[in-house]
Amino acid sequence: MTPLQPLPTDLRRRVAELLVVRASGHLSDDQRRWPRWELDNANLRRLLADGVGGVILLGASAAELRLRTGQLQAWAGGRPLLLCADVEEGVGQRFEGASWLVPPLAVGRLHARDPRTAVEAAERYGRCTGREARAVGLNWVLGPVCDVNNNPANPVINVRAWGEDPATAGALAAAFCRGLQAEGVLGCAKHFPGHGDTAADSHLELPLLPHDRARLEAIELPPFRAAIKAGVAAVMTAHLLLPALDPERPATLSPAVLTQLLRGELGFGGLLVTDALVMEAITGRWGAGEAAVLALAAGADLVLMPADADQAIDAIVAAVETGRLSLERIEAARERRRRALATVAPPEATSVEAPLGPLSGGPEPADRQLALQLVRTGLERRGGRIGAAASATGGVNLVRVDTALVCPFLGATAPALTLPEAAGFRSCLLEGRSPTPWRVAGEDPASPLDLERLGPGPVLLQLFVRGNPFRGSAGGGGEPWAAAVSQLLAAGRLAGLAVYGSPYLWEALRPLLPPDLPAGWSPGQMPLAQAELLGALGLGGSDGTGGFTD
Amino acid sequence: MTPLQPLPTDLRRRVAELLVVRASGHLSDDQRRWPRWELDNANLRRLLADGVGGVILLGASAAELRLRTGQLQAWAGGRPLLLCADVEEGVGQRFEGASWLVPPLAVGRLHARDPRTAVEAAERYGRCTGREARAVGLNWVLGPVCDVNNNPANPVINVRAWGEDPATAGALAAAFCRGLQAEGVLGCAKHFPGHGDTAADSHLELPLLPHDRARLEAIELPPFRAAIKAGVAAVMTAHLLLPALDPERPATLSPAVLTQLLRGELGFGGLLVTDALVMEAITGRWGAGEAAVLALAAGADLVLMPADADQAIDAIVAAVETGRLSLERIEAARERRRRALATVAPPEATSVEAPLGPLSGGPEPADRQLALQLVRTGLERRGGRIGAAASATGGVNLVRVDTALVCPFLGATAPALTLPEAAGFRSCLLEGRSPTPWRVAGEDPASPLDLERLGPGPVLLQLFVRGNPFRGSAGGGGEPWAAAVSQLLAAGRLAGLAVYGSPYLWEALRPLLPPDLPAGWSPGQMPLAQAELLGALGLGGSDGTGGFTD
Repeated sequence: MTPLQPLPTDLRRRVAELLVVRASGHLSDDQRRWPRWELDNANLRRLLADGVGGVILLGASAAELRLRTGQLQAWAGGRPLLLCADVEEGVGQRFEGASWLVPPLAVGRLHARDPRTAVEAAERYGRCTGREARAVGLNWVLGPVCDVNNNPANPVINVRAWGEDPATAGALAAAFCRGLQAEGVLGCAKHFPGHGDTAADSHLELPLLPHDRARLEAIELPPFRAAIKAGVAAVMTAHLLLPALDPERPATLSPAVLTQLLRGELGFGGLLVTDALVMEAITGRWGAGEAAVLALAAGADLVLMPADADQAIDAIVAAVETGRLSLERIEAARERRRRALATVAPPEATSVEAPLGPLSGGPEPADRQLALQLVRTGLERRGGRIGAAASATGGVNLVRVDTALVCPFLGATAPALTLPEAAGFRSCLLEGRSPTPWRVAGEDPASPLDLERLGPGPVLLQLFVRGNPFRGSAGGGGEPWAAAVSQLLAAGRLAGLAVYGSPYLWEALRPLLPPDLPAGWSPGQMPLAQAELLGALGLGGSDGTGGFTD
Repeated sequence: MTPLQPLPTDLRRRVAELLVVRASGHLSDDQRRWPRWELDNANLRRLLADGVGGVILLGASAAELRLRTGQLQAWAGGRPLLLCADVEEGVGQRFEGASWLVPPLAVGRLHARDPRTAVEAAERYGRCTGREARAVGLNWVLGPVCDVNNNPANPVINVRAWGEDPATAGALAAAFCRGLQAEGVLGCAKHFPGHGDTAADSHLELPLLPHDRARLEAIELPPFRAAIKAGVAAVMTAHLLLPALDPERPATLSPAVLTQLLRGELGFGGLLVTDALVMEAITGRWGAGEAAVLALAAGADLVLMPADADQAIDAIVAAVETGRLSLERIEAARERRRRALATVAPPEATSVEAPLGPLSGGPEPADRQLALQLVRTGLERRGGRIGAAASATGGVNLVRVDTALVCPFLGATAPALTLPEAAGFRSCLLEGRSPTPWRVAGEDPASPLDLERLGPGPVLLQLFVRGNPFRGSAGGGGEPWAAAVSQLLAAGRLAGLAVYGSPYLWEALRPLLPPDLPAGWSPGQMPLAQAELLGALGLGGSDGTGGFTD
């Protein structure tokens, strides 16, 4: 095929505009946490000079990110860039110094009890995120998650979802979106047409959703319809196979899903972006260049994190030159990008004294109040309080996290460590590379913990578990925590239990506990949540705040 | 007593100028790593508005620190502030994104073999530190350490010293100082009159130096004389008892040490600052206010980190009002501060594109080269290379660090983890709160490790140990690593040994090793040092750089 009209001389530049590449939020290449995924500055600068239109950022403090976003804008020569991040749980989830809010599912659970308060909270959640995004120079938040988390085994979505049913997810995602976009920051409903009912991790393999159209209409699509009705600026595709819609291609590359269903039937006229193309489920099968061409041909406007940006641009240009992709497709995508950028507010004004504008001293009082209120609302507790007797006898504070090496919620001053230690417990920290706490000889499924190795005394067990991508730890990382809880109870050694993150792990362990045992669950894992939950269990300040907030 | 002349109405403001208070380098109070020691922003701002003259900073990235130093200057209303930090080992030691250099003692050891190269390296070390300090807005580096580390059990000084003998320490401290101050940044020789020969930690208790004047003249004083001769702008006092000079008061509070010895005999006319008064050895005995008064009365010009800034100001003002301290003492101190500030260069110019000036993309090429060269020069290795056989059988990468929670050298991409893991080793990370790797039953001093718990296979042992204050871990944290090395050798399971930090631990373990066993020591603990040492031991890139540097 050959094109029907002469191609513009700056075609390469126009195509580059449709890429969103990944970079670290840090200024220096040496500071990159994921150098395999993050462009170095030389390549980033070159690509921005060549017209690349967006950057997705991860890492750095809010303050450093503000400098970084300004730098990237300057490298783009003043052309407006899309500057985005996966800050689904507040800007502070990824960038220290801003608000870190409870996972959306906490608000979703509140919705069952008190829908009005939940909707109001979701909107404030969006307001807070939008305002702080502007303060750090981001203009596009990759949220709300519109997936319905109706599959507790889902390793990717889990507590990131706003609900476990379509009505809740839709109402709250829409409310978040209204709040966010009212602050002049673009939102992004994801992952279309719905990633909630999957047990495979699309970061690693291609999950399959076997449902027919009627079921999609009933469960998966309503939250997207709600977000679109609320005016969401963008939608992100899912790397999922939906044989009922397209037996060959995953949603990200499927005209049936993107053009017929989303553009046609759902009437979405905004910006359509792929999920990260670098994921193995896509790039492993189609390659960096071909995946980008197929995504645009299917109806996507923007290509997120191609495995190789130059290859993606080359392949798209070649596809236009050979007529596989029309120039109109490119121009329509550019026009949607332009229209979206026209709605964003400028970054907050800064000064030497207030280098992050209103965020310079950390979150503003109303946002701190919101963060605290959401933690308190989401918290569940039962049983008594951990008595002085438990610690007086030299108790053990047994803490399980995925990794202590990149763990923003577990620094040296984390309440999960300091509060029990102040009460006389000695901490034992289990992370991915720790020596095993499990019996290695004389195995006994009913007594999996090697109690002798823990040392004597009552045990406060704190489990930080949520279904993070790449970690496969939804439900406890395959470790026998239910048996361990029973073992500690049988030995008369369980002083208390705190679960942070997964409601499903909590719901699996809760029935094992005697009614008076001090125990609780917090959807959030951040220091504020630790202080609140431990305070409620009797460790920390008498007002239950553990003295962490002011 | 009453003063002989009317006191100025702004006495309180003049006194405040002599304080150097501690703050976090982060913008937000929530980000403070040591909230117990670091002023919150409300108090910091108030004290700066009241005339406080200096701030010592810790924590944050280089980028955030640049914003922070600008903010503090603005809060001081344009009055020039002393902005200092303990960046003895390069600005990157404390502020990510800048150069992190090997501990000075590595250069000291080079001095024995090649004094000219060592002196040149120390001067470049100072240049690099000074240039990067200016880039982040610091104008005062609290180095060089002029203590002679002639006591390997010293828990505070250790590898921070430039030498283990007075001539080396003096020559290198002076060279560092020349380089640093040539960049327009003030230096500070510490800890007068010499903290090298102590085994107690003055952060916790008051150490005693029992030496007579002749011995001080032979060992402790020469490096200070050398630094003074090199024009060092400031000297910091030690919290030490020297009965030969003053039977009652520690050096910090002693007129005999500060005025007679340092000002008089050594002829030092620059800025004299106390070590942190908040340390228990001082504040526990004298209290925040009285300690500040005694320090100024003894001859100090500046009071560093008083336990309570308001109490210190109140006490000094009262002492002037009652005549215990003369106004002349205050004015002389202010005048020395003014003269020191007059010599500093302005911070590096910045732009949106280069928000840290020349440091915007991380260290400049020459400084990267210096960091690499110092690591390579300091490195000691022996024996063969770790063969593929060791990892093919599923070896164990046993890594010991003080803590993984605040460990700038051990992130998720640390070569100490990634290089052995890439070669097939599984990592076992021992940190302060890990489950114990030692036998808990059937103890046997000759076989302290619980090998069954480690699992099968050859063991690569990596020990990160240096004599850090507060940690008491000089020489291996009291853990039986020598016995463990012998145990692993006897079991035929030691694949390799890497020691990072303390030369004394390395020298204790080295004699136990058979000549062909792959083993080595690096004075530095940073990722670059890990990549270099492991590369030299056969893990990582074939050029021995492990692919970490460019």
